[in-house]
Amino acid sequence: MALIVQKYGGTSVADCRHIENVAERVIAGKRQGDNVVVVLSAMSGETNRLIDLAEQIHTRPDPRELDVLLSTGEQVTISLMAMALKKRGFGARSFLGSQITIETDTAHGKARIMNIATEELKKTITRGHIPVIAGFQGITPEGDITTLGRGGSDTTAVAVATALDADVCEIYTDVDGIYTTDPNICPSARKIDRISYEEMMEMASLGAKVLEIRSVEYAMRYEIPLHVRSSFTDSLGSYVVKEDEIMEQTLVSGVPYSTNEARITISKVPDRPGIATKIFSPISEANIVVDMIIQNTRASDLTDMTFTVSQADYEQAMEIVKGVASEIGAERVAGDPDIAKVSIVGVGMRNHSGVASKMFDILAGHGINILMISTSEIKISCIIQRKYTELAVRALHEGFGLSDQ
Amino acid sequence: MALIVQKYGGTSVADCRHIENVAERVIAGKRQGDNVVVVLSAMSGETNRLIDLAEQIHTRPDPRELDVLLSTGEQVTISLMAMALKKRGFGARSFLGSQITIETDTAHGKARIMNIATEELKKTITRGHIPVIAGFQGITPEGDITTLGRGGSDTTAVAVATALDADVCEIYTDVDGIYTTDPNICPSARKIDRISYEEMMEMASLGAKVLEIRSVEYAMRYEIPLHVRSSFTDSLGSYVVKEDEIMEQTLVSGVPYSTNEARITISKVPDRPGIATKIFSPISEANIVVDMIIQNTRASDLTDMTFTVSQADYEQAMEIVKGVASEIGAERVAGDPDIAKVSIVGVGMRNHSGVASKMFDILAGHGINILMISTSEIKISCIIQRKYTELAVRALHEGFGLSDQ
Repeated sequence: MALIVQKYGGTSVADCRHIENVAERVIAGKRQGDNVVVVLSAMSGETNRLIDLAEQIHTRPDPRELDVLLSTGEQVTISLMAMALKKRGFGARSFLGSQITIETDTAHGKARIMNIATEELKKTITRGHIPVIAGFQGITPEGDITTLGRGGSDTTAVAVATALDADVCEIYTDVDGIYTTDPNICPSARKIDRISYEEMMEMASLGAKVLEIRSVEYAMRYEIPLHVRSSFTDSLGSYVVKEDEIMEQTLVSGVPYSTNEARITISKVPDRPGIATKIFSPISEANIVVDMIIQNTRASDLTDMTFTVSQADYEQAMEIVKGVASEIGAERVAGDPDIAKVSIVGVGMRNHSGVASKMFDILAGHGINILMISTSEIKISCIIQRKYTELAVRALHEGFGLSDQ
Repeated sequence: MALIVQKYGGTSVADCRHIENVAERVIAGKRQGDNVVVVLSAMSGETNRLIDLAEQIHTRPDPRELDVLLSTGEQVTISLMAMALKKRGFGARSFLGSQITIETDTAHGKARIMNIATEELKKTITRGHIPVIAGFQGITPEGDITTLGRGGSDTTAVAVATALDADVCEIYTDVDGIYTTDPNICPSARKIDRISYEEMMEMASLGAKVLEIRSVEYAMRYEIPLHVRSSFTDSLGSYVVKEDEIMEQTLVSGVPYSTNEARITISKVPDRPGIATKIFSPISEANIVVDMIIQNTRASDLTDMTFTVSQADYEQAMEIVKGVASEIGAERVAGDPDIAKVSIVGVGMRNHSGVASKMFDILAGHGINILMISTSEIKISCIIQRKYTELAVRALHEGFGLSDQ
């Protein structure tokens, strides 16, 4: 008898009809003899509807109260799901974050889970009943409601699976698994059967949206297998597991990309110690996340500094940097919002040289100029002009053999 | 410095614009130097929307889970209100029933408040901040969410006012006070400045909808003055207070009525001990509330039994009674769903004889036949044919001098 945590996203519980379908799926698991624990998101669109209400009151709503508001979304779905399960003759019981309890820190809107009490959940499971848990929410030691940020229900599911020592955490979504790249721009994209935690984390941070990165981190740390699958079909999806549980190693597992990038260059910066701090401190104080940073040393004592930020932060970052540039005596500031980041990810890179040069070759072969490069042990990212995004992704997918069956 | 509990109903917080208006009103109270505690209902229509969701899952949804669902309505309004107050520079903090805590029994959907902890509320008030409390909800000692039933936010407000020993509990609604009768059918209806708890309870139970009866009972027991007023104007509304705080005593204070009545008569019942139990036990077991009961003894050992139930229960009650009638050997069962109950209420009746006969005279003077009569110390109710409702109400309102200024 396995213990399975099943997490269903917003599109899987979009309305009462969908909720009934999910109830059938949960019960199918019970009928197979497994214990099932359900974690739910809010109905799709509901969180946005609530944010819109809050923004009618204030463009920057109070964080504590926003969490009180947003946490109602999951409260609605768990109660309806428990009703649907009970209607079918199964014992079920909804649990809010505060009822379990799921204790978090006090960082409203992006809280981190500190501890999950399991006593009530275990009692419910032992009785043969189905706990239905509100994802995305927790409670501070002082009793304030918190939320975990976008995609936080994934994190709740993995944390609950860890706390209960579950056999697997199934993440149900509206796609049938994790793909080698985005099928919308690369028709030969294939569903990945098994992928390692490390690769999945890189994929998620580089643009693949199917899993929230913190949940993968959590699953990796506690070695909980994830199974990403569709709530609309019965076919198996993609497993995210430990590296040594993957038989067939490929050089490259996926080609994630992101068009949500912009580049800023400060030219001819006097190269003194502490100059990077002068540039990046005010950016960080404005809560702008900097992704890649490259520094080229010119002849003499001048240097060029180039970095990328997200599209949304581009204009604010440009303003800040222009202010700093005149202070530190840099010659000019140039910006380019029309870039993209294409990456290749694969644990196979660790043991193979020449992967990077093959990537550069492929891009050059299609006349794509590389503007910036960033590497880690298991990924290589290139910044290119945005208009080449689709071409680059398809070329890399083909070139590294991912298009073959 | 007074402590005022202000309760706002669903129409007063119907959308974000209304919530902003209420925030201004709350702040006006603070600026006068008073401490204000806010209790809110869900946005008008929201509770019905949630019930509709539940009924899409099950026509009789699980009571525990229904309360989890319904309690989200108030959670939304309190968070938005706290945001609106904070935006205006005032300290504010939303409180769920579970955060205060408002402890109730376990009767889901109609829970009774057992205890209200005041520590956190008092701390918030002492800091000069405004507690914004979710009405209608509580929590059991086991941590399950409960709701108090329709109009339960009134009860929350009065219970909070009691627990905090507030100077007054203001009930804001979409009408400007309590009226001598329904202005929609009697244009000369007048707003009542002061009314006693006892009269208000009779008015509420006899058809006046402005206050939930349990909240009046609660206010009476703990002698908390209620002030029923409009959230859309600044004028004073109606005070509900102790009898001895009302200077000018009138014979009759109000003329409530209800058209939600139906009558059932069992004729020629053999008059044996225990016969009433035989009739009313199965009705009570079906959760049907019987209002008036009249028994006429005929010559010999036969009796007639007449009683009233609500329209909604009429058909089911008729079926039950027909079954019982044949068992006990009654001659026939007759039903009349086209009746109404008109009443007069006033503590002045205690010290005046002749009020009942004056009522009967007035009705007879307009050719209205009285089908049943029921009296208590401070009210007289008559069942009449429904088509005479408006005529009877206007005649009684005029006849007892309520139409005069």
